[in-house]
Amino acid sequence: MNLRIPGPTPCPPEVLAAMSGQMVNHRGPEFSALLTKVTGLLKEFFQTSNDLLTLTTSGTGALEAAVVNTLSPGDKVLSVVIGNFGERFAEIARVFGAEVVMLQFEWGTAADPEAIRQALHGDPAIKAVLVTHNETSTGVTNDLHTIAKVVKEFDKLLLVDAISSIGSIDLPVDAWSCDVVVTGSQKGWMVPPGLAFASVSPAAWEAFRTAKMPRFYFDFGKAKKFADKGQTPWTPAISLYYALGVSLELMKEEGFQNIIARHTRVASYTRKKMQELGLSLFADEHCASNTVTAVNVPQGVNVRALLKILKDKYGVVLSAGQGKIADSIFRVGHLGYVGESDIDAVYEALRESLSELGCKVPLLT
Amino acid sequence: MNLRIPGPTPCPPEVLAAMSGQMVNHRGPEFSALLTKVTGLLKEFFQTSNDLLTLTTSGTGALEAAVVNTLSPGDKVLSVVIGNFGERFAEIARVFGAEVVMLQFEWGTAADPEAIRQALHGDPAIKAVLVTHNETSTGVTNDLHTIAKVVKEFDKLLLVDAISSIGSIDLPVDAWSCDVVVTGSQKGWMVPPGLAFASVSPAAWEAFRTAKMPRFYFDFGKAKKFADKGQTPWTPAISLYYALGVSLELMKEEGFQNIIARHTRVASYTRKKMQELGLSLFADEHCASNTVTAVNVPQGVNVRALLKILKDKYGVVLSAGQGKIADSIFRVGHLGYVGESDIDAVYEALRESLSELGCKVPLLT
Repeated sequence: MNLRIPGPTPCPPEVLAAMSGQMVNHRGPEFSALLTKVTGLLKEFFQTSNDLLTLTTSGTGALEAAVVNTLSPGDKVLSVVIGNFGERFAEIARVFGAEVVMLQFEWGTAADPEAIRQALHGDPAIKAVLVTHNETSTGVTNDLHTIAKVVKEFDKLLLVDAISSIGSIDLPVDAWSCDVVVTGSQKGWMVPPGLAFASVSPAAWEAFRTAKMPRFYFDFGKAKKFADKGQTPWTPAISLYYALGVSLELMKEEGFQNIIARHTRVASYTRKKMQELGLSLFADEHCASNTVTAVNVPQGVNVRALLKILKDKYGVVLSAGQGKIADSIFRVGHLGYVGESDIDAVYEALRESLSELGCKVPLLT
Repeated sequence: MNLRIPGPTPCPPEVLAAMSGQMVNHRGPEFSALLTKVTGLLKEFFQTSNDLLTLTTSGTGALEAAVVNTLSPGDKVLSVVIGNFGERFAEIARVFGAEVVMLQFEWGTAADPEAIRQALHGDPAIKAVLVTHNETSTGVTNDLHTIAKVVKEFDKLLLVDAISSIGSIDLPVDAWSCDVVVTGSQKGWMVPPGLAFASVSPAAWEAFRTAKMPRFYFDFGKAKKFADKGQTPWTPAISLYYALGVSLELMKEEGFQNIIARHTRVASYTRKKMQELGLSLFADEHCASNTVTAVNVPQGVNVRALLKILKDKYGVVLSAGQGKIADSIFRVGHLGYVGESDIDAVYEALRESLSELGCKVPLLT
């Protein structure tokens, strides 16, 4: 199978092999050494000297952690929403009692930093800004660097969903003054799902000290206390740490700048190949993501039927859309363990499958 | 290494091999078939027709889920505490705003059902009872059958921490009318840590509908909605489901009653072998656990030194105590993938290590 969805992503064989390691005592020296090692390497990829916490959870749990560790019920937050995952981040804040001001942009476009400036200028009561760096549902990357500058003009807390960006798309956490940045193991990190990582800035720790949203499993304070002695507060998903140790070494070997460059190159190649088929892209070119490409489903084609042929006949697994664009786009994931040849396979399979569905390929645009 | 701690437990080779499977689409038919299969098998081992939900989290996350899905801030709950994990369960309820009435028993003993009856009789405002079936920190198993009868006399909700019991110690969820029962993959299930399982009774669902504690990642309603279509709401730890599929088949092959009997037999053998060394047991004999044995550290022996020799020289990994008995006991785990020969190895290593520490073995008692 050629799994080309925006996560879980395929894992290199060395990483999968590491998953079969036997269990060890999670309170013993072997696990402690491993946790210390992966934490150090993650900090390099996060380009941060902030605390870096690892959690046994999916990415959504880490979004919840970002919210509940820094906010109190009644706090006003600005949620910058450009798709399904931005909506989810806002919903988590709402569920835990924040007063959420929604700043929504058309799906397929990026957030306008100037609109964020106006929102913050107009409402000094806002305490924190929630933003999705890379919106997996629409294939759009926000201009986080500019957004962060705006948020810091007003000295607000910046909570970033970087689940499908960091590790694949440049996000220098300290240089951009991001307070909490979260990601999940099954994205650019080339590890199976089940772990999430969060960086926590001094300003976020200051917010933590007065934050009153209830938290236990996701408590950053407990995680930090145990991390300082090379442990996790609760039993960690040991096998995934084995895999992470191997994948981070592979990533270090390739080099961070090379990884970023490869994702840029493969994304550009993906967009070009889709356009060669006569397919149109959902996201604006200037904000198109380097980890996932959203493609408009051609008129008259049923996306479920297309995905089924791609998979059953050609072994290529793509994703449908989510939310209100569930049926009008499909998505090609190109993050983590990916190169141009994987995209060639997607191209060939799409050409054949579209033909079988009665389309003349390349489509007339 | 002979890992004999009360979790994570060693995994059979077939289970570890399954961990190396490549990723699949967690929204596709292969994962859906696997989730449906493991859910069905777990329900057999839980002896329940209640809903059975699987969560990507450690056991502590499942304890949090049990609380936040059934209670509202201000609800009064009775926490039956016989050790460290009972305290944790109570603390979670407190953090999320419950009014917690503590009913504590001396560590090393089981809860007295009559005291629970009196507590419930004396305080009709209590809505739910939180109880640990098997207290891992002290090696004690509560008489959950009798406790459940008492709780149901008063028609209260019964939330059970069965993390280190169910699957190894008999717990017929429906026959005993337990409302929420949670466990973790790294215990009797012979799977690496990272998954937790929770059964949810109709009465628990009724409580869910009015429960106002905030929840998102651990929301049972979302888990149920997705489980009904063979999915999980958030990206699941796919590799652990592969392992679980294999381990549950191994367990079914051995047979549930045989597994219970093996744990009873190995526990009894463990206690006998410890006593042969002249060691005394921490827990009362009549409530001693079939999954973990707590042993008093002989006078004059430093538990850290003992555990270090056991590991470094004999490859046997045991656990120290927790909380207020951290230095006065050690614990031998015997759940999951375990037989008498594993205990023989513990016995030999203990005999040698105690001698090296200057004890005359068997110790004079």
